[in-house]
Amino acid sequence: MKPIQPLEEEKVFKDPVHNYIHVQDRLIWTLINTPEFQRLRRIRQLGTSYLTFHGAEHSRFSHSLGVYEITRRIISQFERGGYEDWPSEERMVALCAALLHDLGHGPFSHSIEEAFDMNHEEWTCRILLGNTEINRILEEVEPGFAEKVAAVIRKDYEKAIVVNLVSSPLDADRMDYLLRDAYFTGVNYGTIDMDRIIRVLRPHDGRIVVKESGMHAIEDYLMSRYQMYWQVYFHPVTRSSDIVLRHIFQRAKELFDQGYTFKFLPHPLPSLFDGTLNVNEYLLLDEALVQTSFMQWTLEEDEILSDVCSRFMERRLYKYVETELIDLDMIDEIRSEFERAGLHPHYDLEIDFPTDLPYDVFRPGDPKKEKQILLLNRQNKVQEISEVSDVVRSISGIHRGRYHLYFPQEKLERVKNQLSKQVADIFEDKLGPAQMEFEI
Amino acid sequence: MKPIQPLEEEKVFKDPVHNYIHVQDRLIWTLINTPEFQRLRRIRQLGTSYLTFHGAEHSRFSHSLGVYEITRRIISQFERGGYEDWPSEERMVALCAALLHDLGHGPFSHSIEEAFDMNHEEWTCRILLGNTEINRILEEVEPGFAEKVAAVIRKDYEKAIVVNLVSSPLDADRMDYLLRDAYFTGVNYGTIDMDRIIRVLRPHDGRIVVKESGMHAIEDYLMSRYQMYWQVYFHPVTRSSDIVLRHIFQRAKELFDQGYTFKFLPHPLPSLFDGTLNVNEYLLLDEALVQTSFMQWTLEEDEILSDVCSRFMERRLYKYVETELIDLDMIDEIRSEFERAGLHPHYDLEIDFPTDLPYDVFRPGDPKKEKQILLLNRQNKVQEISEVSDVVRSISGIHRGRYHLYFPQEKLERVKNQLSKQVADIFEDKLGPAQMEFEI
Amino acid sequence: MKPIQPLEEEKVFKDPVHNYIHVQDRLIWTLINTPEFQRLRRIRQLGTSYLTFHGAEHSRFSHSLGVYEITRRIISQFERGGYEDWPSEERMVALCAALLHDLGHGPFSHSIEEAFDMNHEEWTCRILLGNTEINRILEEVEPGFAEKVAAVIRKDYEKAIVVNLVSSPLDADRMDYLLRDAYFTGVNYGTIDMDRIIRVLRPHDGRIVVKESGMHAIEDYLMSRYQMYWQVYFHPVTRSSDIVLRHIFQRAKELFDQGYTFKFLPHPLPSLFDGTLNVNEYLLLDEALVQTSFMQWTLEEDEILSDVCSRFMERRLYKYVETELIDLDMIDEIRSEFERAGLHPHYDLEIDFPTDLPYDVFRPGDPKKEKQILLLNRQNKVQEISEVSDVVRSISGIHRGRYHLYFPQEKLERVKNQLSKQVADIFEDKLGPAQMEFEI
Amino acid sequence: MKPIQPLEEEKVFKDPVHNYIHVQDRLIWTLINTPEFQRLRRIRQLGTSYLTFHGAEHSRFSHSLGVYEITRRIISQFERGGYEDWPSEERMVALCAALLHDLGHGPFSHSIEEAFDMNHEEWTCRILLGNTEINRILEEVEPGFAEKVAAVIRKDYEKAIVVNLVSSPLDADRMDYLLRDAYFTGVNYGTIDMDRIIRVLRPHDGRIVVKESGMHAIEDYLMSRYQMYWQVYFHPVTRSSDIVLRHIFQRAKELFDQGYTFKFLPHPLPSLFDGTLNVNEYLLLDEALVQTSFMQWTLEEDEILSDVCSRFMERRLYKYVETELIDLDMIDEIRSEFERAGLHPHYDLEIDFPTDLPYDVFRPGDPKKEKQILLLNRQNKVQEISEVSDVVRSISGIHRGRYHLYFPQEKLERVKNQLSKQVADIFEDKLGPAQMEFEI
Repeated sequence: MKPIQPLEEEKVFKDPVHNYIHVQDRLIWTLINTPEFQRLRRIRQLGTSYLTFHGAEHSRFSHSLGVYEITRRIISQFERGGYEDWPSEERMVALCAALLHDLGHGPFSHSIEEAFDMNHEEWTCRILLGNTEINRILEEVEPGFAEKVAAVIRKDYEKAIVVNLVSSPLDADRMDYLLRDAYFTGVNYGTIDMDRIIRVLRPHDGRIVVKESGMHAIEDYLMSRYQMYWQVYFHPVTRSSDIVLRHIFQRAKELFDQGYTFKFLPHPLPSLFDGTLNVNEYLLLDEALVQTSFMQWTLEEDEILSDVCSRFMERRLYKYVETELIDLDMIDEIRSEFERAGLHPHYDLEIDFPTDLPYDVFRPGDPKKEKQILLLNRQNKVQEISEVSDVVRSISGIHRGRYHLYFPQEKLERVKNQLSKQVADIFEDKLGPAQMEFEI
Repeated sequence: MKPIQPLEEEKVFKDPVHNYIHVQDRLIWTLINTPEFQRLRRIRQLGTSYLTFHGAEHSRFSHSLGVYEITRRIISQFERGGYEDWPSEERMVALCAALLHDLGHGPFSHSIEEAFDMNHEEWTCRILLGNTEINRILEEVEPGFAEKVAAVIRKDYEKAIVVNLVSSPLDADRMDYLLRDAYFTGVNYGTIDMDRIIRVLRPHDGRIVVKESGMHAIEDYLMSRYQMYWQVYFHPVTRSSDIVLRHIFQRAKELFDQGYTFKFLPHPLPSLFDGTLNVNEYLLLDEALVQTSFMQWTLEEDEILSDVCSRFMERRLYKYVETELIDLDMIDEIRSEFERAGLHPHYDLEIDFPTDLPYDVFRPGDPKKEKQILLLNRQNKVQEISEVSDVVRSISGIHRGRYHLYFPQEKLERVKNQLSKQVADIFEDKLGPAQMEFEI
Repeated sequence: MKPIQPLEEEKVFKDPVHNYIHVQDRLIWTLINTPEFQRLRRIRQLGTSYLTFHGAEHSRFSHSLGVYEITRRIISQFERGGYEDWPSEERMVALCAALLHDLGHGPFSHSIEEAFDMNHEEWTCRILLGNTEINRILEEVEPGFAEKVAAVIRKDYEKAIVVNLVSSPLDADRMDYLLRDAYFTGVNYGTIDMDRIIRVLRPHDGRIVVKESGMHAIEDYLMSRYQMYWQVYFHPVTRSSDIVLRHIFQRAKELFDQGYTFKFLPHPLPSLFDGTLNVNEYLLLDEALVQTSFMQWTLEEDEILSDVCSRFMERRLYKYVETELIDLDMIDEIRSEFERAGLHPHYDLEIDFPTDLPYDVFRPGDPKKEKQILLLNRQNKVQEISEVSDVVRSISGIHRGRYHLYFPQEKLERVKNQLSKQVADIFEDKLGPAQMEFEI
Repeated sequence: MKPIQPLEEEKVFKDPVHNYIHVQDRLIWTLINTPEFQRLRRIRQLGTSYLTFHGAEHSRFSHSLGVYEITRRIISQFERGGYEDWPSEERMVALCAALLHDLGHGPFSHSIEEAFDMNHEEWTCRILLGNTEINRILEEVEPGFAEKVAAVIRKDYEKAIVVNLVSSPLDADRMDYLLRDAYFTGVNYGTIDMDRIIRVLRPHDGRIVVKESGMHAIEDYLMSRYQMYWQVYFHPVTRSSDIVLRHIFQRAKELFDQGYTFKFLPHPLPSLFDGTLNVNEYLLLDEALVQTSFMQWTLEEDEILSDVCSRFMERRLYKYVETELIDLDMIDEIRSEFERAGLHPHYDLEIDFPTDLPYDVFRPGDPKKEKQILLLNRQNKVQEISEVSDVVRSISGIHRGRYHLYFPQEKLERVKNQLSKQVADIFEDKLGPAQMEFEI
């Protein structure tokens, strides 16, 4: 049980967001220095967003340290306050889960998960429990400790408050990414008052609640989050690069399934394609490998593959139009006309509806308890925040999003006169080139 | 001559350092969208510094945009001031040179240059003048325009003031990297008052000088720069990772020269190793390719190569001691004892003297005119800054740096008792493990 | 017409919010150096807010420079864009109006205006047109120039777009105060993206509109503004100090009207009290004079006056309760019970309803054209923003505010048992002492 | 001994520099709410610097809270580290001394002290020990507690480490003012890494020393401090306003001593002038009173007094020339010529030598132990920093400063032709009007 000892002297990481990340426990220090955790340096936090916001090159490594640090500060506040509802023996489980929660993310996570039907939380658990250095270190704490951490990740740990700390609408994960993504993209939104939020959090009856007097800080946090989603996470240029990326994965898998001979197909991509990846292979996957493959595939003979790879590497993304004119029938019609005109009905047209995206928007009044933000009033009663806050009610009522059609503009130009007027009109330059490029 | 037209509407990039990068000319916009320029997204600005400062993942792409933006602002100040000494017809050459000055940087630039005897400025010129999209676009401005830009890069352009603007002790390059590297590492130094510096620059008699009243801002800039060098650029942990990196390159080349069969050696690495790289091959080199190779080489049979690659990928860097005890004879003695004890005399010991490093420190009083900072007084006379500023004279007198010995600690531990006392003492824990890890 | 000449060399003020304030015109420089403008250094921008946020000591002088600077940047953007709808000959009128728009503010402006039925815009015009240095300088530009500036202030200048620039829901005034008040209070809200907003403003058909693609920046601006109102401008502790301040003014005037002999009543307070202030007397009024009077009045014999003055100087403010329990009848009842219990029905109880406060909240859909924010789409059509933006519609629907009762707690404690249960209950510690003190 | 109890719930002040000031002890809370401490809101931290940097309106109240907060954080670090050399029972004495150390500052402190031969530390002790609310509260802790706090202020408290914490070259006072003054003036210097400095401080053998590995952070701190002195504290425009201010005090006292009848001379100015101020009178002195007097004195009949008062209120400061041409004989000569030409030999000429100013510059190698910065190495030995740091040695060798002559320009212009060529030349426009005004 050695790793749980404190370090002789606190160690720090210099961090642009939290100034310093403080490491006080030998266990945390040792976990950070495993190959599995260091691999997160090679996975970007924001996927393809760097093609929209060139500063957004920050890694899941730095985000994971940030989530750990915020969790450490929250727990330290709980300990200073001496609240009985906080089970202090759970500190180490909570810190490990915070640090390691993103361990299973693959390269360009959301896109690769979609393309290969994978799930990063599952992979996190496989890494925690598999034949890895992380697992060995955790099991040195006490046999079964790795499973405890995995249970927190799976959200079925017996102490619900630990799950709640690491995964809830106000958790350390969200606080870190809002601040970090705002910092590295350079946008002015996302400037939440983290110190104040931490100060008003309270352990209460098996979950984390908010002291009522902190309501305005939470309103501000939710507004910032709302702005970050629309200004950064759902940015149409990022969507466009995500789509190109998904097309690459889809086409490569298609070719692989058809027995196509790749000039370049390094280990462990074959296992990725045929669905037999084991943990050690999975850990070899990183964005360097994926980008190198894309670069080499620009030289492949398959035209579709080499085209989408060049587009990605050279940032020649799909253009888009935003439209209210279409329904599902119309989409079929467009695809047919595209095909007749010699375009590819799938690779040359993608349809996107922003609110279907896999990001979570806070929905006040969600009946699922774990998705609620609860306020604790002076009579020690809890209330769901939207019952009290007009602001929260208001912004939760906002529905946005229209269909976005993504397509390779130069190809469309070539065949435009072969399309029906109705279809051609949809692609009329509603937003125009000024909008199509980065404009934020 | 179309590309020189202004854009219908200014375009912007969101930048965390300068808030917005403004693009007003179609030529600049087109250059940014070439594959050659987009490649800079895959080259980190600070090489291996991200292993010391986890935020330092920013790319040469963002730095190049920053240098362009600062140059644009300086020229715009010159134009508003209506100074006769500024040749306004050179605006476009200057902006292009500013934007493209780092085009030839390779992956982990300083280390790869050292290992393979290359020079990034030379490669920049080869890309500007070779069969590239960049070249085609520049030549559309007017035949010979690419050569003009290359001449600025080579510092032999006929209008010396343009060279001076892009490359001098106060140039846009240095201003951007101080600000940008401070921002992404998170250190508090490097907060120069760029607006003020820009405001006091004056074109004068074929070069850029500083209005005398701006002297204090320049002193502050030089102090910031001094701090950045010692706190960030010369950080011993970064040095350690640079050394591991160089060892990888050296070992791989050694093996290649010996005819070793690599399990993984993607195009164009063979050409890199045998020194036959052409421009198009060079453009395929990026940090993704290099990191992927390192990752795959962890599986190679050559133990030295697989060891240094694992060290780099898992960030198990060499430890170091800082010492005043040694001279060149002693170094030979250490290497011999290492060899006798079964360590590798080269791969298990590297000696470093910080001030030999290839970074430029401003040396006031440098007789080379182009390395001087000149003040312009109210009588329109220029003076070299160290004649006037006590601060500049003082910090220029500072010599620092002691020998640093880098070595794989666990290997040394194993053989320590076979070393003479004199040698063993040198490796005595002068700084101790707390220091060895990141501590800033 | 000399003052309109440019300065030989641009001058700057160092400003924490805009970095530098740039002065290019001799006229602006001369106006800043008048006694009338320098007086604004002695009027705080945020009145009594410094008693809640101790950083908020910034003056109307710095705000006025900021408004000038933003206006300068907007006009400069218009000039660079070469928009025909901007009447470039109006630049100087607009800059002067921006710089001088707050010239007529008195000490603790809102409170003194309420107490003495004055209006700062009216006083601004009297100073512009009266026997002042400001007037002499403006008239040197051309006879009638001062009247032009005054017309802009009065919102009846013939060129409506100039009025719109200086006074509209998106004007330079609001942009500066949001940024400045956020900076000096230290709150995290109010971080609007000013550069972007300036970039999307367009002169159009006699007013300033917003390029449609800038809609999200405006949404963010309106959210920030909303947060600033509730977190800073309507802060109950500030309200409490405003009420104490108003009580001082009211009591002093009451005493003056009754012929009370003040130990201390410096020139020009008698004229303020009897309503005969002329411009030169008005210019002697500043917060130093008012605070000095309050300090000296702590030694007056009138107990009410000396009590409220001590409260203000020593920051012993009224406590408050927030309640939904009362209506107008109940208020009468409370006052009666207070009186019967020996409390003063007026000075010991103040009732406040936040949304009655004199701050302007943006109300989308306001039929008054000059209070609307208009978007300009790519077909060159304008639309009121709430027609397009769900966010704007949502936050505009938010109604907040409940009755706040302010009272001297220690006096109430003494008589609480003489009050009816119904009344006593209202003063029950609903928020409790933790809330009563500064808690943000 | 009630006041020493912790508060039920921590209270906070929102602070732009430290984000939040945390108050955990009832004693601290009660002290902040005394009239004596609230008075510090009416004393500016930076005296007349607001006439140079318009943002610098921040008060000694906010600075005192900041010093308290930093001290709290240092002590909290000591407690977490469990260092034996920190006498934990001294926490409350140290916090009180930190909070109250500036209590005795008068309006425009340095100038008024010089003019009336007062000392703010002495007044701090008189307030601590006199018949004040502060004294009553401190004595409630335990009889003699106020004297303990006063001893710390006087630097003769028996536990030297407490004195050292509150007053040394690295104390909380200096850290707060560098950060705060940089924030409110808006200059880019002064951005010290406070978190890191706090982390490397260690209690050691009766004083505070610095862990050796923190040396670079201290070098950076000393460089920042150096820049702040020359860019802000010694700014010649501020010096000019200080001189005008001193002239006001001198002239008023002269007139008072001559029996002049002031139209306006509020209590307690007569006691200030005749040197009989008692503590309660002293506490009535604030900058509002002083500024109000200046404003009223612009209407006095004495021309010198009314002139210097108008200058101050309207910011018509003295111009200056910087010269190397003069010595003491020459100064006498200038004064004689001034007098012959009808100027006032004293009020129309002031000579200033920046390094004579009362600000403390860190002088490494100072033999006075309490003025040294000591490094603690890994062998637990201490060394004075300049023995180890080249940077510190270098910047300490910098001597700057030339004679500055301050004078009313328009008066000088009138008589310039009556001066000898030698004298007239000195006042030749060496820096010129562009420099004379604010230019930073």
